[in-house]
Amino acid sequence: MKLYDNVLAPNPRRVRIYLAEKGIEVPTVQVDLFRREQKSDAFKRKNSLGSIPVLELDDGQCIAESVAICRYFEELHPQPALFGGNALERAHVEMWNRRVELGLGVPLAQVWIHGSPITAPLVAAEGAAQVPAAAEFNRAIIARFFRWLDRELDGRACIAGERFSVADITALCMVDFAAALVGIAVDPALANVARWHATVSARPSAQA
Amino acid sequence: MKLYDNVLAPNPRRVRIYLAEKGIEVPTVQVDLFRREQKSDAFKRKNSLGSIPVLELDDGQCIAESVAICRYFEELHPQPALFGGNALERAHVEMWNRRVELGLGVPLAQVWIHGSPITAPLVAAEGAAQVPAAAEFNRAIIARFFRWLDRELDGRACIAGERFSVADITALCMVDFAAALVGIAVDPALANVARWHATVSARPSAQA
Repeated sequence: MKLYDNVLAPNPRRVRIYLAEKGIEVPTVQVDLFRREQKSDAFKRKNSLGSIPVLELDDGQCIAESVAICRYFEELHPQPALFGGNALERAHVEMWNRRVELGLGVPLAQVWIHGSPITAPLVAAEGAAQVPAAAEFNRAIIARFFRWLDRELDGRACIAGERFSVADITALCMVDFAAALVGIAVDPALANVARWHATVSARPSAQA
Repeated sequence: MKLYDNVLAPNPRRVRIYLAEKGIEVPTVQVDLFRREQKSDAFKRKNSLGSIPVLELDDGQCIAESVAICRYFEELHPQPALFGGNALERAHVEMWNRRVELGLGVPLAQVWIHGSPITAPLVAAEGAAQVPAAAEFNRAIIARFFRWLDRELDGRACIAGERFSVADITALCMVDFAAALVGIAVDPALANVARWHATVSARPSAQA
């Protein structure tokens, strides 16, 4: 199998960190996002949405969406459990992963789409125009999310409880993407978020 | 256990349809969204985000997020499999469920937030203002999504393949919410989407 990847994009990084935590090695193929290689006819035969990451199996079947790829590996390599160790824990990891995706990832994507000079030509290529007020609207949502997350992380090691999970991987990739490419850094006064971020960033997998 | 529910909201309906497909009966408690009961201190002790659905277990532990609740029941009652029957099928159901959530659910929520008179006072209560251009921007994304979905459903019975899954439940709830409350109906010229919608709507579970 092989993983279609790009080292600058946040969603493929989720898979790379997951694989590093599991100790699984998968050959990667870098997809050139600046040249829009993911939108080529050849790539759309692997994922008709034209996005990465994509896992191609040895028989040519493909799995798109970072969490779908990670879940597939979780079944092949159950230990260490990164989606939770029992039914209730798995429900809570799913809940927390979604809270991070919907509460942070979605508004972050809106700020990225509507507020970045990098995405402006991509939006124009779709025949649309950025809506700067939508970027501002979502910046406020992100600020509220981080204040809420800081309260939740009081006295807790990881996003979904005491055990590191895919919810931490999702949050790490979103937080780092926000700082590096969207110009949104976590307020250092949010001490619990800052402590959590320092801890997960110190894991070797964060270099993936 | 009991399910905190509201019969008008799309996400609790996902859980109700799922339970109906499984033949599982769970007592429900209606949460009054118009009176903002989900934002009360009492409810936020169950889900600090103040949203529904929430499943409360007999020991008082709570699970929020519709898909997390459904996954929990999938472990207790594996048959019929609604998240896929083997590792690859489960990966594809996850992929398709996410494609529908991210490709339809997310822009639909933007149109709902920025384009509906129903949400205007809720946005104002957060100290913000609707961004009508964001609603228009996302209407175009939804139209593109449906054209893409129509091509994908050519010759296929269900969203994730031949077998009914949670991806169909997600899509049904989003499509019906779009038509009923957001003023977005599927173009009848998209024959594959129309056929799929008629088929899933005819299942007894769609009445849940």
